[in-house]
Parts: sequence; structure tokens; C-alpha cells
Amino acid sequence: MAGNTFGRILRLTTFGESHGAAIGGILDGCPAGIPIDEENIQRELDLRKPGQGLAGTARRESDTLHLLSGVFEGLSEGTPIAFYIANEDQRSRDYGNLSDVFRPGHADFSYFCKYGGIRDYRGGGRSSGRETAARVAGGAIAKKILAVEAGGEITAACVELGGIAAQKIDLAGAQGRPYFAADPEIVDSWNEAVRKAKGEADTLGGLVLLRAAHVPSGLGEPVFDKLDAVIAHALMGVGAVKGVEIGDGFAAARAGGASNNDVLLPGGKFASNHAGGIAGGISTGQDILARVAVRPIASIPRLQQTIDRRGERAEVLVGGRHDLSAIPRIVPVLSAMLALALADALLLQKRMQKSQCAIPWQEERPRNGG
Amino acid sequence: MAGNTFGRILRLTTFGESHGAAIGGILDGCPAGIPIDEENIQRELDLRKPGQGLAGTARRESDTLHLLSGVFEGLSEGTPIAFYIANEDQRSRDYGNLSDVFRPGHADFSYFCKYGGIRDYRGGGRSSGRETAARVAGGAIAKKILAVEAGGEITAACVELGGIAAQKIDLAGAQGRPYFAADPEIVDSWNEAVRKAKGEADTLGGLVLLRAAHVPSGLGEPVFDKLDAVIAHALMGVGAVKGVEIGDGFAAARAGGASNNDVLLPGGKFASNHAGGIAGGISTGQDILARVAVRPIASIPRLQQTIDRRGERAEVLVGGRHDLSAIPRIVPVLSAMLALALADALLLQKRMQKSQCAIPWQEERPRNGG
Amino acid sequence: MAGNTFGRILRLTTFGESHGAAIGGILDGCPAGIPIDEENIQRELDLRKPGQGLAGTARRESDTLHLLSGVFEGLSEGTPIAFYIANEDQRSRDYGNLSDVFRPGHADFSYFCKYGGIRDYRGGGRSSGRETAARVAGGAIAKKILAVEAGGEITAACVELGGIAAQKIDLAGAQGRPYFAADPEIVDSWNEAVRKAKGEADTLGGLVLLRAAHVPSGLGEPVFDKLDAVIAHALMGVGAVKGVEIGDGFAAARAGGASNNDVLLPGGKFASNHAGGIAGGISTGQDILARVAVRPIASIPRLQQTIDRRGERAEVLVGGRHDLSAIPRIVPVLSAMLALALADALLLQKRMQKSQCAIPWQEERPRNGG
Amino acid sequence: MAGNTFGRILRLTTFGESHGAAIGGILDGCPAGIPIDEENIQRELDLRKPGQGLAGTARRESDTLHLLSGVFEGLSEGTPIAFYIANEDQRSRDYGNLSDVFRPGHADFSYFCKYGGIRDYRGGGRSSGRETAARVAGGAIAKKILAVEAGGEITAACVELGGIAAQKIDLAGAQGRPYFAADPEIVDSWNEAVRKAKGEADTLGGLVLLRAAHVPSGLGEPVFDKLDAVIAHALMGVGAVKGVEIGDGFAAARAGGASNNDVLLPGGKFASNHAGGIAGGISTGQDILARVAVRPIASIPRLQQTIDRRGERAEVLVGGRHDLSAIPRIVPVLSAMLALALADALLLQKRMQKSQCAIPWQEERPRNGG
Repeated sequence: MAGNTFGRILRLTTFGESHGAAIGGILDGCPAGIPIDEENIQRELDLRKPGQGLAGTARRESDTLHLLSGVFEGLSEGTPIAFYIANEDQRSRDYGNLSDVFRPGHADFSYFCKYGGIRDYRGGGRSSGRETAARVAGGAIAKKILAVEAGGEITAACVELGGIAAQKIDLAGAQGRPYFAADPEIVDSWNEAVRKAKGEADTLGGLVLLRAAHVPSGLGEPVFDKLDAVIAHALMGVGAVKGVEIGDGFAAARAGGASNNDVLLPGGKFASNHAGGIAGGISTGQDILARVAVRPIASIPRLQQTIDRRGERAEVLVGGRHDLSAIPRIVPVLSAMLALALADALLLQKRMQKSQCAIPWQEERPRNGG
Repeated sequence: MAGNTFGRILRLTTFGESHGAAIGGILDGCPAGIPIDEENIQRELDLRKPGQGLAGTARRESDTLHLLSGVFEGLSEGTPIAFYIANEDQRSRDYGNLSDVFRPGHADFSYFCKYGGIRDYRGGGRSSGRETAARVAGGAIAKKILAVEAGGEITAACVELGGIAAQKIDLAGAQGRPYFAADPEIVDSWNEAVRKAKGEADTLGGLVLLRAAHVPSGLGEPVFDKLDAVIAHALMGVGAVKGVEIGDGFAAARAGGASNNDVLLPGGKFASNHAGGIAGGISTGQDILARVAVRPIASIPRLQQTIDRRGERAEVLVGGRHDLSAIPRIVPVLSAMLALALADALLLQKRMQKSQCAIPWQEERPRNGG
Repeated sequence: MAGNTFGRILRLTTFGESHGAAIGGILDGCPAGIPIDEENIQRELDLRKPGQGLAGTARRESDTLHLLSGVFEGLSEGTPIAFYIANEDQRSRDYGNLSDVFRPGHADFSYFCKYGGIRDYRGGGRSSGRETAARVAGGAIAKKILAVEAGGEITAACVELGGIAAQKIDLAGAQGRPYFAADPEIVDSWNEAVRKAKGEADTLGGLVLLRAAHVPSGLGEPVFDKLDAVIAHALMGVGAVKGVEIGDGFAAARAGGASNNDVLLPGGKFASNHAGGIAGGISTGQDILARVAVRPIASIPRLQQTIDRRGERAEVLVGGRHDLSAIPRIVPVLSAMLALALADALLLQKRMQKSQCAIPWQEERPRNGG
Repeated sequence: MAGNTFGRILRLTTFGESHGAAIGGILDGCPAGIPIDEENIQRELDLRKPGQGLAGTARRESDTLHLLSGVFEGLSEGTPIAFYIANEDQRSRDYGNLSDVFRPGHADFSYFCKYGGIRDYRGGGRSSGRETAARVAGGAIAKKILAVEAGGEITAACVELGGIAAQKIDLAGAQGRPYFAADPEIVDSWNEAVRKAKGEADTLGGLVLLRAAHVPSGLGEPVFDKLDAVIAHALMGVGAVKGVEIGDGFAAARAGGASNNDVLLPGGKFASNHAGGIAGGISTGQDILARVAVRPIASIPRLQQTIDRRGERAEVLVGGRHDLSAIPRIVPVLSAMLALALADALLLQKRMQKSQCAIPWQEERPRNGG
């Protein structure tokens, strides 16, 4: 209930402060017999490591994953999969001056209120972006479950940075590009925007597009736990995210019903995908499409007005080593959260249905259909 | 786990198909001693009743609430509060022709897949907007809890309809206006847009703005259950919602950190509220601000191409009586969901810290602070 | 979290005070396509109705079940199944004298403490045995799920009353006998014990034996949610239950390992069932066996010493109409709770492993076994 | 849902196989500001270490606890407290011969069924008693929460071993005695029983008594999550436990209501405690009393008949190093589970009540009582 667990059947519980001994988590509910490939998890972790390209922090972490349980002879055992990543390059001294003041745009003040005055001021403690490494590790296993159980696959890309939008969307190649850019030709302008922001001691935000392909129809629950509601929960729960839309999203609010409806075609295909692969909160079998708004980093290298723990006026110069934008490092984190949400929905659906079929006419009727 | 329950401490479980005997719910976890006023709940229900203004359906329901438990001598007992609303004006015959075909833009096909071919084709069954009446009833009690325990208050308004945006935002007066319009002077243009859409056998979407005032700081949990994540879950789980943003939302993705940070002022106030009252997923004590994108109604009065339950080509003319837009009726529903999310977060936060204080310097230190 | 919901996948949430308008519940998570037979539910309800035999209260309730949702054309829809039972014969006046005093052995005092002084004094309110009718209704559907999905069947009987133990155990015929007696020849001595207790203005307790047959192997979760732990939770949560044992239970504590081990026989059978069908918290495919200790009814027809709501000395004579023993009426309630626990475990286990098989060698290997 | 998490507000999630890299857990929901004393946790762990007295295994583990997160400057931060214990002395070779056969009385066969044929045969993997070390670590923090927030204290003792019952019950001194014996004079007879069992290549079971003192009234939830139901869940979820009783337990089933009722005395005290401190599922403020039946260890040093993974007849001689009885090592584990159940109920109750008072007349009325 303290919000460090995500999922219903596939449950990821994470731990760790940015400047404590380690961060990590326990993934519970993974079916037995899923091939778990430590290198594969490490590969996903490396995608969010600090120090990539112009927008990255100078903090260096090897982010080496240590698996502690749940895997035997290369297969998941069906038992909890625990892992941790040691914090190596902490330099807490950078934060000594922050023990008494609240950094604007950070969680310092709200945590101070929440925990009755007790606060880990070292780099934000639990509110640090470092916490997301554990999500990426859990998400890597979730992606494997999606692939093994349903052939599902998730791709993600940055489609806008500092207000400069990608002109074309090529998700397939994004992982190899700087900023995980959806458009190879936009990278130069984004580099320019980053340089400009650096010069102005400012930071940048952007937009991320996520796509999940080969997701079976029938995932999601009616009413409160619609698949899009759970996805929004998963994505909005990542620090710096301020907006989530599914399919056409806010644009759909301006369209008419006649143009917004996705017409069904023989065999259960569709003529369009304005809905983003979800109708009435349940997956249709089309690609799941989500777009996420990422606000600029709050740690700007300037002297800022603020208050101290007595509520009195103060000034703060945020030290430490910070990214200039949550992009690109947030991209693999959002991709991991989508994977966790979908793998959980997939495992849950398997329990809600007497037959296992995705589309009834494709398979035998439920054996006890009445 | 089947997604018909919302909340952790304050839990609303709803039931009912649009054309079954009744809809209703059980609100569990309401503290003892909250004054429960049946008229007050009914008043909230009346706000979403069909048949208000140009955009409304012709279906008539008295939506009379029946309380079955949990209230004694005018106060909540701390036990489950159960209620139901009878379905009176069902006219299922309108739907007989829908038993074999899937309506475009509706949940017909995805439910068919989810439930192994079993589907309540009468007006969408569980996926009908009628289900939301139970949310409004639960939300009315949640609003009372917010008011009694923290003085919290929620207001909501439509800020855009059919692509026509309100020019000024006056939330206070919205409840009394057609479409719960944020701007009294926009109503004529919206009426015009509705008439035009009717003429074209089309439907409309829009945008809703929500504000929660007097919300204590410290609500929300770190990591996965950030307050904004839970709010996004609550709002995206309402049918027809395709996007949610908190504070500046998507606009924040285009701003720089220097302008996006909300500077703290002495006493725990802020110079601005770009964050929408939430920092690091925890409430700051400022107004909570959320904006919601509502897609157009899928039931358009035209012959549409689709497929039948054998997966073969078919045509459908959606009968029944439908709204032309989910606005205005969705506004009290979204307001109820925000209330449920916040009241639950409030009850969960109660004593998460050992002291009761919102801002520690305002009250005594925790009695067992170590 | 307020404890009015039982189950993880199959979730029963109940409501109702003994002297409010109605009691009932919502069963969520029932798979689609289960034949729901209203008469069958009513038949189970009739088994716990007041007024059966010597030990019963004089209160009369028709206990007529009203189904409100979740069933369409004779099959479950996969949506919440809501039901209620009106309270007809309340006679609250019997309880007027109890508004200020706490009845010994009842929940009056502990509820008073829990709810900050607010208490429904009419017949115990939420703590009344009347609440169990909703469990029986939910359990009737759980039994149907067990039967349809796995062929499972539950039988229950009273094996001891007022310290007089049944000499032989015939579970099959128990349902037809007074007291649901396991032994037809014990009934006369139990009648005699009841008469004697009546004469002494006293009440009786007893022991109940439960058996679940044809439960698949593999149900239950390791560690905290072992199948026996969940069953103990389910049974101990019924009012008046003070002890639960699985298989040989307390007798096993006195046995040696050599005699207590159940030897496996070819094909996955066993030479004995000391374990009660559960090893390491997971079902083995043998009969699940549980025994429950039921304390005597606390409402004795005598003047008793107690205190009032100011904490001062008082006397109380408990009026109302009360059973002399929780047996036999508790028997169908315990049977319902066991059914809910097992059906939930069955739905949770469904596809926890990638193959569907109960015993792997009986079926093909998991399709993605690595 | 996979059963590796216990609790609602205070949630312990554990991981680890007996012969994997490590075991450990995450305790989430601990309030901020609780003094966490690593030595204190280690002390509790040392109580269950192997190699104590006649009944213990020869396996040696230092069981050194490593705290990874959630504690800063000696106080809990309100964030997840993660810890692990490395597996040092594994000697998996002892188990090579068990990869194909199922040990009688163990979870080998039921796990094999549950996980579709995938099984960690090294010492029982997840079903090993070694898993309980993580419970003891979590329980140590739960005991601190109980002490700091309510002054609560838990004591436990073995009251019967091999059928030989303690003649007097002295809980206070038990922790210092062999077998955590309730009676100092019984130790010799128990030593004798252990020698005898060893000589006969047999193992022993016993009974454990638990007492929680200074538990506030009002803990526990009505209906399904009664405090005794949650305690039974917690205790029955420990391996080898086959029975749980609260207060007089099975003896209460033979008593009359007149003698079984606990009469209330002025000020909220009681003349007796047959109920074991729980009435109607809610704590009364008296001592919580529970008794647990522990079956004999299944690993007997004899050749046993069984079957192999093809379902065919086989023989097995269980090697490895095993205790002769789960007592005494299970005693601190049961004590930890009771602490986790009570601390969780305490933190949950703080959210369910508008006032914080234990007994209303002792404190001010709820501030919003109507």
C-alpha cells in the first residue's frame, strides 16, 4: 500500500535510495519455465545508464545486475526473482548543502510533509530517478513473458525534445539513435537545442511514443482497471511525466465520432487505430499506442529562491550531476512500465476466462460453456 | 482483480449492466462518524442524469438511490455502505439487432474476445455509461470524507466542446451552467456545434478541467502509486477518456526547467502551480489540477460497416437513445473519480507518518521520533 | 482493506447489518460462462435459515435471494454478480436496552473501541451471524465454479456437540440429518444435551469437519499464502470459530515423522492422508480435510455482570431470539468459506504454470518450456 | 498474488531458495521515524540459527543480515526496507539424488504439479525452512513498530514436545531456555525424548504458545479479516504448522456459554480471557493468546518408499542435514509472524478511525464526530 509495488499477478516491488547501499527489487508472479537471460536484463539496464550523449549526467554507474533468486537451470522457477544493483558513485557530499532547504520542482518539500519531517536529502533519496533502474530490470523480464506467452513486442522513441517535433516516425530504428529519436534527421536540431539550453543554464522536456505490437485481444478489465487506465497509472508513475494519452488522445477530443470510430474488418482486423488498440478498456488485438509528456528536469544550474525546513526564505544552488533532460534515459523506463502493465494484464486475463482463446471463433468453445 | 473495485483504504466496488435489474455498489472503508446525507448523494446523481440540454439522450431514469447498509442514526458506521439504483427505462428491444454484430468504437468486440464469446449485447451491458452512476454515488461520500477530514473541495467544468475552447475559466459557476461550461459566453457556440453535429449525424468530444482545493500536503506514495498516477488511473478508467494531464501537462514538455519550476515561498506557499499541486508524486498543498480528453460518442446515427460474431462482414445501424457527447454527463463522473482517489489517498496517508501534521513545523514533532 | 472482501481472483465483498434494510454482496471475478442457478443458491441459503430443530432461534426470515447483475441468459457474464437479501423480521425493540451496555462474549465492546464510540447496537449490527447469509450465497456460486472447472465437491458435518463426539463419520448423509450430524446415532444424545443446556440457561459449542474432494493438485501459493493458511483465514473469519486444524492437526504434533509422512504411490496417489491433502502449502490432489472448533453462543438467557459505555458497572439481560448453539447453522457457512477459498485458489493457479496440466506427466510439456 | 507478500499496510515480501545465492526480503509500509537497530534484527535472527541444542541440524550459517535501504541516520525513512542474507553452507551435492524422486511429507510432489514439472530440488528450494529467516528479520522490525507505537510485546514458548507437555507455563523466561521451553523442569524429559527419537530414526512435533501483551483494543476488521483470522493465516502459513487455536480454542468447543463468556469489569478490564484477547474478530485490549500445532519433521533418516517424476515406484534416502524437530527453531518464526500480523493491523486501524483513541472514554471524542 506504500506504493512500492506494481501489478496484480506479476508484481514488481522495488527498493532503494539514490545514495543508499543499493537499489533493486523483487519480481513475484513470473510463471515457471520462462527463460531468464541475465545478459538480456543487463542490456536493458545499459540503455538507461547515465552518460549517454549530450543530455546526460556525468555520474557513472556500472549498474551491474545481481540476480539473487527465482532462476534455476536457466528457467524461472515461479518463485520471486530478486535482484539488486549496488550504488557505486554516490558523492553524497554534493548534497550536504541540501539537508535544510527544499529544491524547487523536486519532491523535497512534499516528502518532508509526508514523512513528518524525516527526509533523505541525499540526491532525493527514494524520489531520485535512480530508482527507475529497478523498473527496467523488472520490465526486461516482463518483456520476455510477453514474448514467450504471446509474441508481444514493445518499441519506444522520443518524438519531441525542447518543443522540436520529429518530422517522421520510425520506431524500429529508434533504439540505435541518440535520444532514441523517432526521426534520424531531427537529431542535429535536438543537439542544437541541448547546447542552447546548456548555455542558458536551463533544461528541456519532450514527448515519448510507445507501441506494443502483438498484444492479444481481451486484456484489461471493465470499469476501474481498464487497460488504458492501468497503462496511464504505470506511465504517470514515472517521475517527470505530466501527461499520458492513448491512441489519438487529446486530438480525439476534437474529432467527430464518424471519423474517430475504427471500422471492423473481416477476421477481426480494423480499418484504422484511432483508439490505440483499446476499446472499452479492453485490448482489441491492434497495436497499443501511448504518448507521454515529460517535463523539463527541475535541477537547473542556477541560484534559485526557495525556503528551508523552518519555512523561512532561503536560496539554493543545486549541485550534484544531473541530466539536462529526462530524455533519453526515461525512454527505456517507460518501455519497461508498459511491459509490466501488459504482462500483468496478460497473466490476469488467463485467470478470468474459461477458454484460453483470444478470439473465440479461432478456437474451440469453452469446454464448460453451459 | 476483475477491475470492479477502486481504492486501497476507501474501496468502491460497483456492479450492474445497463439493462439488468439494477446498478449499484459497496463503498468499504469509510471511517465511522461521517455524516451521510442521502439527499446529498441524490443531488450528485441528478447532475449526471440523462436528458439535460441539447447533447443528452432521451432515455429517462429517475436514478433514485437506495441505501442498504452502513449508516445508522445519520452517521457512517465504519461498515460497508451499499446502495443500488434500479434500471427502469430499459427498452432492450432496441438492442435485439445488436446480438450478432459489433458496433464500431464500442467494447462489443473486445468484450466478446475477453469473455470467450459470452456478451451482454443489451446496450453494452457492463461497458455502458450507465455504470458510472454508481461511481457518482460513491464519489459523493468520498467528497464528504474529504470535506470532513480535511476541508477539501472539488470543482469541475467543461473547457472545450467540439474543438471550441472556453475563452475564460470560471470553475466556481460551472455547475449551474449548460454543459458545466467553464465560460458562460461559450454556451451559444457550443449549442451551435451540437446542432451542426446532429445535422451531420455525427457526435462530439471535448475537454474537462478538474480542480481539488484544500488538499493536505503529503498525499500520494513514492514510486508506482504517485498521486498523479493514481489520479490518472481513476480518470482514464472512465469510458471515452483518451488522455489525462496534470498541471501544465503536455505544455510542460515544451517549457524550460527555469520557467516550469514552482518557487517555494515562506510558510510553504508557492509562486506558481505548473506542477498541478503534485511534486514527486506527493501533494504539495496547492490546488490539484487535472485536464481530461473525452473522445466523441461512438454511437452515431448512421449505417456503419462492421463484422458479426462469426468474423464476417456486416452492417449495423445503432438504435437506442444516445447522447451526442459524453459532455456534460461525464463531468460529475470525473469529479467523483477524483474525489475517490483523493479520499483514499488521504485515509492511506493518515498516520503513515507518526505525527498527524501536514507541515511538520505547524505542529508538534512526532511523539516517537526516536 | 476494511475486511469485507475475501479472495484474490474470485472476490466476495459483503455488506449489511442485522437490523438494517438488507444484507448482501458482490461476487467479482467469476469466469464468464458458468451456469448460475438462482434456485441452487437459494437451496444453500435455506440450509442456514433460522428455526431448524432444537438449537435454533425463533427469528423467522424467508432469506429470499435477489440477483441484481452479472448473469445473462443463464450464464455468468464475467462481470460482478450482485445480490441482496432483505431483513424482514427485525424487532429492533428487543435491543433498545443494549444501546448503553456491552454484552459479555459479544463484539459490543471491541467494536465500540474500534469505531471511536460509534456502534450499531441492534443485534450486533455488522458482527451479527446474519452477515453469514451473504457468504453462503457467494459460496454457492464458488461451489459451482469448483464443480464446472474441476469437478470439486465439498461436504461438511458436525462431529461433536456439547462435548459429545460422533462415534462414526458419515459425511455423505450429513446434510439430511439434524445438526448436519456426521453420525445418525448421535442425534438423540445431542438433543438431550440441548435440552439440558436449555434447562440450565446455558449454550453449547461443537466441532465441524469439512472435506473437499476432487481438488486438483498444485493449488495454493508458497510461503505466506499456503493453501492451508488461506483456508485457516477463511474458516477462522467466521464468528464463534476459535480453532482450525488441517488433516491430523493437533494430533500430528504428537506423532512421529515416520508414521506422519504420507507415502506416495505410483500415479501420484498416496498410502494415507495425515496431511489433509496439502503438502508445503500446495494441494496434493488428495481430499482436503479441515476441522473447526466452534465456541458456545455468547447470548445466554441470564442476568450478566458487565459495564456500560461510560466504563461503569452494569447488568445486562440479553433479549432477542438466539440460537442455543452456532451448530448446525454454522456448517453451511464454513462449507461456503471453504468453497470460496478453493475456487479462488483454483482461478489463481490457472496458468500460473504455462501448461494447464495438474500432473505434468499426464499431459504435454509446457509449450514454451525453454 | 503469488503468495510471497504478507500484510496490507505493513507488507513483507520475501525471496530466496535454500540453495540459491541468498534469501531476504523487502518490508514496505514501515512508518518514518521508527528507530531501526541492525543489531536488534540480528539478535532475532540468531534465535533461529541452526545448531542449537539436541534437536538442531548440523548446517552452519552465520545468517548475517545486510540492510540495503530504507534507514537513514538511525531512523526508518518510510521507504522500503530491503535486506538479504547470503547462503553460505549449501552443499547442494547432498541433494543430487533427489532431482528425480519426491520425498514423502515434503512439498516436492505438490510443487512439481504446481509449476508444470519445473522444480528446484536442492533442499526444497522455496519450500525450505530456510525461507523463514526473512520472516524473522521482518518480524524484528514489526516488533519495534508495535513497541514504539503501542508498547506491545510478544513472548513465545514451546509447551509440548513429542507428546510431553510442560507442567507449568512461564513465558517470561522461555527465551533463555533450551527448546524455548515454557517449563524449566521439562527440559530433561524433552532431551530424553529427542535421544529416543534419534535412536529410532524418527522425528518429533510439538506445541507452541504465543502471547502478545499491550495490544490496543480495536485492532482487526469485521467479517473476513477478523484479527484471529489474520493471525491464523500468518501462523498456518509457516511450514509444518497443522493447527492454530485462539484463547481456549478447541477446549472452548466443549465449554458452556456461561463459563466461556469473559465478564467485563469497570474501566474496560475483564474477569477472564477465554477469548484470547479477541471478541468478534476485534482486539479487546487483553493479551492475545494463540497456540500452534507443529507436525514432526518429514526428513527421517530412513529408506522410504515413494515415486519418481515419471510417476513410477522408487525409494529415497533423504540426506542433507536436518533438524529432528521444527522446535525450537520455529518458535522465533511464529513470534515474528504474530508481530507482522499485529503491527499491520495496528497501522491499518489508524486509517479506519477518525479519532486515534483506543477506548473512547479515555480520550477526546473524534474531532468531526458529526
